Amino acid sequence: MTERLYLYDTTLRDGQQTQGVSFSTPEKFRIAAALDRLGVDYVEGGWPGANPTDSAFFEQAPELKATLAAFGMTKRAGRSAENDDVLAAVLNANTPAVCIVGKTHDFHVEKALEITLDENVANIRESIAHLVAQGREALFDAEHFFDGWKANRDYALDCIRAAHEAGARWVVLCDTNGGTLPVEIGRIVAEVIAAGIPGYRLGIHTHNDTANAVAGSLAAVDAGARQIQGTLNGLGERCGNANLVTLIPTLLLKEPYASLYETGVSHAALRELTTISRQLDDILNRVPTKQAPFVGASAFAHKAGLHASAILKAPETYEHVDPALVGNERVIPMSNQAGQSNLRRRLAEAGIEVEKGDPALGRMLAEVKEREDRGYTYDSAQASFELLAREELGVMPRFFEVERYRVTIERRRNAAGKRISLSEAVVVIEVDGERRMSVSESVDADGSDRGPVNALAKALAKDLGPLQEAIEDMHLVDFKVRITQGGTEAVTRVIIDSEDASGRRWSTVGVSPNIVDASFEALTDAIRWKLLRETGAARRTA
Amino acid sequence: MTERLYLYDTTLRDGQQTQGVSFSTPEKFRIAAALDRLGVDYVEGGWPGANPTDSAFFEQAPELKATLAAFGMTKRAGRSAENDDVLAAVLNANTPAVCIVGKTHDFHVEKALEITLDENVANIRESIAHLVAQGREALFDAEHFFDGWKANRDYALDCIRAAHEAGARWVVLCDTNGGTLPVEIGRIVAEVIAAGIPGYRLGIHTHNDTANAVAGSLAAVDAGARQIQGTLNGLGERCGNANLVTLIPTLLLKEPYASLYETGVSHAALRELTTISRQLDDILNRVPTKQAPFVGASAFAHKAGLHASAILKAPETYEHVDPALVGNERVIPMSNQAGQSNLRRRLAEAGIEVEKGDPALGRMLAEVKEREDRGYTYDSAQASFELLAREELGVMPRFFEVERYRVTIERRRNAAGKRISLSEAVVVIEVDGERRMSVSESVDADGSDRGPVNALAKALAKDLGPLQEAIEDMHLVDFKVRITQGGTEAVTRVIIDSEDASGRRWSTVGVSPNIVDASFEALTDAIRWKLLRETGAARRTA
Repeated sequence: MTERLYLYDTTLRDGQQTQGVSFSTPEKFRIAAALDRLGVDYVEGGWPGANPTDSAFFEQAPELKATLAAFGMTKRAGRSAENDDVLAAVLNANTPAVCIVGKTHDFHVEKALEITLDENVANIRESIAHLVAQGREALFDAEHFFDGWKANRDYALDCIRAAHEAGARWVVLCDTNGGTLPVEIGRIVAEVIAAGIPGYRLGIHTHNDTANAVAGSLAAVDAGARQIQGTLNGLGERCGNANLVTLIPTLLLKEPYASLYETGVSHAALRELTTISRQLDDILNRVPTKQAPFVGASAFAHKAGLHASAILKAPETYEHVDPALVGNERVIPMSNQAGQSNLRRRLAEAGIEVEKGDPALGRMLAEVKEREDRGYTYDSAQASFELLAREELGVMPRFFEVERYRVTIERRRNAAGKRISLSEAVVVIEVDGERRMSVSESVDADGSDRGPVNALAKALAKDLGPLQEAIEDMHLVDFKVRITQGGTEAVTRVIIDSEDASGRRWSTVGVSPNIVDASFEALTDAIRWKLLRETGAARRTA
Repeated sequence: MTERLYLYDTTLRDGQQTQGVSFSTPEKFRIAAALDRLGVDYVEGGWPGANPTDSAFFEQAPELKATLAAFGMTKRAGRSAENDDVLAAVLNANTPAVCIVGKTHDFHVEKALEITLDENVANIRESIAHLVAQGREALFDAEHFFDGWKANRDYALDCIRAAHEAGARWVVLCDTNGGTLPVEIGRIVAEVIAAGIPGYRLGIHTHNDTANAVAGSLAAVDAGARQIQGTLNGLGERCGNANLVTLIPTLLLKEPYASLYETGVSHAALRELTTISRQLDDILNRVPTKQAPFVGASAFAHKAGLHASAILKAPETYEHVDPALVGNERVIPMSNQAGQSNLRRRLAEAGIEVEKGDPALGRMLAEVKEREDRGYTYDSAQASFELLAREELGVMPRFFEVERYRVTIERRRNAAGKRISLSEAVVVIEVDGERRMSVSESVDADGSDRGPVNALAKALAKDLGPLQEAIEDMHLVDFKVRITQGGTEAVTRVIIDSEDASGRRWSTVGVSPNIVDASFEALTDAIRWKLLRETGAARRTA
């Protein structure tokens, strides 16, 4: 008999406390959809009324299988729950669940809130009762609970008992400062249960300030808590929150948890875990953490030596779970057989069949490795990978040749004395033996400057002569820039996503110390890939 | 009465299994010196004979307070310990301690070593006895111990008992695949002790594949183990080893550990922890992890408005330890959730005192909010924030004025027919009523093109007239680019880190649809902030 564990995601609220992170409303929708695909039980969308982004999110509240929750705080002293405007703003978001934070540590009540201990208990009780009376599922977020329990156990218990008795579905024990170690979390959760609040009404909310957020969550589950709060990729203030991307596969795949509990996440959804984790990094334009448990690029990487040869005999010798179960991949040095079969699979995906043992495979691996050392990445630029492979196989047509380009970026005052900036690009190419010269500028119809890469993209796509028709319907949809390491120097990597009228999307990469040059490389790759498809060259040579 | 815990560092051996990491011999010396300054008990230098770097390290073995250890493996079957050349190479390194790995999981003995279970036990016993006979402190690294224990408890116990009886000072229980969860590690260590191997002879060696390496180490200590193995910054294969940079402050500062145990690390050395952690990143040319427990730049950063105002009243409300104890600092960044108290605190840090309730505070918050909506971020660009605040308060000198600039980026063939790229920047500024025109190009002394932003930075810093001397010692150390949302349009955000001869570092931000323009804004901010410091303007107006 397994027991049900509930997963509560707070990426969109507590995760947004990460230094340097602030989601736009459309980004919040994308993340909520990913969480729903994964199968978490609750998605906390934010704090309605606290900022325009969160308010906008709830106004257009997405339809989710998960229970959508809004976050707020207990009513203030000296007014009724009905008349508290902060609480009203949270209720007005009309979410099925509402989570409100309140204090449970006597020191904080007196020092930060500057009210009496009794007033605080009354605020908790009345706020939760008000949520319940409005027909909402109420959660009480017991701030600083573990520190409070250690300082004044009776008072901390009074606070959560008030929430529990007022009808809170969940009392969430928060280790707000992240300083409580797992052994203490386990002991205190057991004591709370012994004091009369059942484990199936208790949640755990930890932070990673001692690298124990996952372990603290597991210790609480061991002791009887049945809801876990966390974030994708462990986003969160300071060192982050408990990482659901680590916790979910741990609960589903690892003993003793896999046999004891079940969650709302299916094994099919678990196979999307790596994709979902990287999608979040993509939204944040962050480099995914290579060493991340389960989903990192290094999580199943075996460096040459004793381990690598044992892995070939039996993967389970050095892997604690099968990487495919979380949508990740085993990485073994490129030079061996596994590297070649991996390459053949990727080529097949691009419609290029290469015989096993073809010497071109070895050359291609060497070329990819050499380019990756210089800063290229082909994981997220499959179109550039296909072009590279075709060059190596001798099946890449030479559609056009770039002779030279020049971009000028200027900021100055115009005749009216207004400060303006303007870029201009000149591109000279050769198509079918004929030289063609194009010029474009960066200023849009509305007069705003779109920058040098925009000018260059327009000039490049302006006159391809007989090939022009084939590229008319493509446009640039996304543009990502990252400073990375290329050999011993910092270089700029540009990834460009293009789209055409059929809705087809493809990604290309360019690398150079010069950002305009890197962009130009990615732009020409994008056009070459499109020409490959439109001229039938892809089919003929596949 | 406290008990002694021993710390064993394997950064130079297991840490070197990290993907992309390989230390040179001089780097190994620097790291060993840092470890010694910190006060770990053992420094494992590598595997003598396995590669030239490790051999060279032991040939010139550094003088350490810590016990230097060499790593190797148990003798092979079919020869005596005296005649095993691999074991001999390890002994020839002449270190006071020797740690040898051997198998304890029956499956691995039969599958990977392809010898009998008895032969393996004999190999362990004879190898350890040989080390002891040579007068070395012997450690037995029990590979795959936890998986072995679960598969065949009697056999795993036979293996470690053989090492123990042969005189191993330490039997180190390794969770080689990193898949054993803390609750199981604690249980199994307790069972090993109950089976007769005392805790003061047991070490623990964990990996972070479920983010539980620190928690697993603590669980082993809770159960009675008295040596912990780990690495600086959690370096190591796949997801890394147990992070000593997290474990050390946890053991010294956090309960129940601080009261129960002592280590060789002093509180004075602990204050160097942040420096040592960042020094390792520096050697590896890695960006330090912001969210790293204790030592990360975000570890004591407070973003939430509610938290930030409480922090001002009493830091202990939202900090689990005092950041100064580990040599780190509290950071209260700007963000769209910041309140006025947060703002005043930030201003005070920049030396600007503003009265509570000053209407300039409200204007400043509105300005910050408006700029954040346009894509700016001040969390990580505190110098630009200070400039913004000074403008708002009317205490920002107008050091110079940019009249215009122009950047030209070209790719073409040179006279020799070689494809080259080159950028050139012209900047016209006015200083003290005088117009100054500078030009620079992007090509380094070695002939490589560093791109348009480099050319622009050089031209801008070339001739500030009477102010030139003040900026001579500053240089650009990092440059980050991200495409973000500015209102409804995609814009480019550039963050530049600068440094001067005193080692002072500051960060500035620029935003524009045009990447060169965004860079130019961040560059001018960097110079203005430096001028503020050098001309005494910061003090005069504070």
